[in-house]
Amino acid sequence: MTYIYVMRVLLIILDGVADRPSLKIGLMTPLQLARKPTFDLLAAGGVTGIMDPVSPGVPVGSDTGHLALLGYDPYVYYTGRGPLEALGAGIELGPMDVAFRCNFATVSDDWVVIDRRAGRISDEEAELLASTLADLSKELSLDAELVFKHTVEHRGVLVIRGAGLSEKISDVDPHREGVKVQMPRPLDSSDNARRTSEVLRNFLVKSREILEKHPVNIERKKRGLKVANVLLPRGAGRLPSLPSIKERYGVKGAVIAGGAIYKGVCRAAGMDVINAPGATGTINTNLDSKFSTMIEALCNYDFVLLHIKGTDSASHDKNPELKARFIEKIDSALGKYLEKFLDDVIICITGDHTTCSTVGEHRGDPVPILIHGKGVRIDDVNKFDEISCSKGGLGRIRGLDLLNILFDLANITKMYGE
Amino acid sequence: MTYIYVMRVLLIILDGVADRPSLKIGLMTPLQLARKPTFDLLAAGGVTGIMDPVSPGVPVGSDTGHLALLGYDPYVYYTGRGPLEALGAGIELGPMDVAFRCNFATVSDDWVVIDRRAGRISDEEAELLASTLADLSKELSLDAELVFKHTVEHRGVLVIRGAGLSEKISDVDPHREGVKVQMPRPLDSSDNARRTSEVLRNFLVKSREILEKHPVNIERKKRGLKVANVLLPRGAGRLPSLPSIKERYGVKGAVIAGGAIYKGVCRAAGMDVINAPGATGTINTNLDSKFSTMIEALCNYDFVLLHIKGTDSASHDKNPELKARFIEKIDSALGKYLEKFLDDVIICITGDHTTCSTVGEHRGDPVPILIHGKGVRIDDVNKFDEISCSKGGLGRIRGLDLLNILFDLANITKMYGE
Repeated sequence: MTYIYVMRVLLIILDGVADRPSLKIGLMTPLQLARKPTFDLLAAGGVTGIMDPVSPGVPVGSDTGHLALLGYDPYVYYTGRGPLEALGAGIELGPMDVAFRCNFATVSDDWVVIDRRAGRISDEEAELLASTLADLSKELSLDAELVFKHTVEHRGVLVIRGAGLSEKISDVDPHREGVKVQMPRPLDSSDNARRTSEVLRNFLVKSREILEKHPVNIERKKRGLKVANVLLPRGAGRLPSLPSIKERYGVKGAVIAGGAIYKGVCRAAGMDVINAPGATGTINTNLDSKFSTMIEALCNYDFVLLHIKGTDSASHDKNPELKARFIEKIDSALGKYLEKFLDDVIICITGDHTTCSTVGEHRGDPVPILIHGKGVRIDDVNKFDEISCSKGGLGRIRGLDLLNILFDLANITKMYGE
Repeated sequence: MTYIYVMRVLLIILDGVADRPSLKIGLMTPLQLARKPTFDLLAAGGVTGIMDPVSPGVPVGSDTGHLALLGYDPYVYYTGRGPLEALGAGIELGPMDVAFRCNFATVSDDWVVIDRRAGRISDEEAELLASTLADLSKELSLDAELVFKHTVEHRGVLVIRGAGLSEKISDVDPHREGVKVQMPRPLDSSDNARRTSEVLRNFLVKSREILEKHPVNIERKKRGLKVANVLLPRGAGRLPSLPSIKERYGVKGAVIAGGAIYKGVCRAAGMDVINAPGATGTINTNLDSKFSTMIEALCNYDFVLLHIKGTDSASHDKNPELKARFIEKIDSALGKYLEKFLDDVIICITGDHTTCSTVGEHRGDPVPILIHGKGVRIDDVNKFDEISCSKGGLGRIRGLDLLNILFDLANITKMYGE
């Protein structure tokens, strides 16, 4: 009988870690600027390359990017951000429910958006606001049930439940500031879409009334802070139907992430969600807690995805210097845990997309990738950054192929044919 | 009228030549270890790259791998290994015939598999056993005709002919040792599948009776060798319907190979099979005979595929050292013929998949490829191995594109568009 040495797979996704060179930091990228001995050591002892999450030049979102990295073609499987956020928030989603991603935001008296993130309101304040909205469906005496749940900072999820609903509803969030909130419109001529947009409109008007006079906002106003006086739903959608990674690859997987969307994509893929204490999905996340949780997860799962968000946030804030410093923090925190798993794990470090800290947005440039572990063909690249990795032994790959590559290296994949 | 210089194309496939670094040979791959001036000379004067036979991270079999390298997407065209083996064994296969790949194997009294290869029984012994089974269908007074043919070593092919058959039959070969033979089961509820599995079961039981008391086995038992007392069919399938390479590329092709499966795939593609005396499909094959036959074939065909198997066998036996030595043998044998064809031929050397000599199995890592000939863009890679070729001018390509690339370089391919 043939003995096959099967290994675990660890995928560390540094959100939006890839960048373009910035004049602010000497025409380097944050990865080129950062001192990162751990990543460079893994690059030197492994194989590197560049990867297009979906396809070359296509900038992806957090949702479509992560779907692709888990092997799901988003052009086939993506049904909107709302349901993935809802799954990530721990909501049990029925196949007929319609889910929306929501922001707490600040609007003027005549509904002009002043701040899409309500002055990046704290988790504690947002929780208090959310709890007041819990019984709103009863109060509105709707025959649809409304579930609102706060996730991280200004973010939350709204789910509408009941018969005769539709996900063909326009975004309320105008995606920019200085313009009026767009009241929801049905996107087709069905009764269900009309009805759903009415339910949503009632919710928006009523919830604004409640939020305006909420003690949290009165206190914020006193302190000169922006009030969270409105909810901006977007990304209406229903539960996507994904074959699980267990079905596809025969592996048991888990995710460790702060943000809801990442947990949601992984839950949709049939993976378990493991909470690391202090994992906030922000630049102040507890990295030590995340890495030690990861080590534990590697004992119980074939496949562990660890997601770190702060790199993306620094890029959206157009701060390549801060991004480089945060990369250094991650590198140093990971370094302390390296010897605990290096021998028996196929480890892959990459990003889900490029976030350009010059324009402050996701862009479609490829991301650098490194893979380290037993049996990996070691190339001569010894730095983990966008330029160095483009000369690596993996060449240029696609996100959809990533799990096949990793599970093959871990000797998990079965042969196709004879 | 434009004069176009049309060249011949020679594709040398070293089966499973690609590998992963192995500690046994200083963390090198067998290609990195081997002294191979001929391959390196061709790499230096040509263009190199890496190739995914089907797609990144997907380990392929001999059948699916060769289909892909000949431009046939196995997800579209593959109908099982059986019919391809049968074609390769020289059997004329009708569209309704059901064909199985078979192994002579050793089983205990209660049908537990002891050796799936019957102690790698010799060709001569297997031939004698096979001839006894020739008239078995008459003896069994079946209304289906059974054709059994020995191919190489422990390998053979079984074809069932007649009305009302089905290929929806489970593998009898359990694919591992220490477990019981799985009697054939119908894989759907059709009468044809039930009937076919009964015919096959009768054949298995009756052939075992005959094999047990065969003089070859009595003699083997006396000498302490494992007996070939059972046949293990697998890979039931019907003739695939492939557009020929003549239709697709306008070329006349031929194959030189020892193993039946490689001849079979090429016959299915409409290529001629040329037998080289002493080509056994093993590590003891007569390389000189193969290369001189190849030179002759290049005079008569636009496209010649030369297949060499031993590299794969050495990897399955987890012997990277032997694999490197065999690569050196091939390199040196080819070197003697180089000047006879180098000027007028586009020559491509590659593998059909990675066979990892650490785990002893096919894996999904890409394979190195070199292309040499007039007009080829010469890159600066001067070694033919997995790591060096990953820096080559071809980048990372797919097996399905290989023949297009080669026939284009040979100036055979017509323009698409105007």
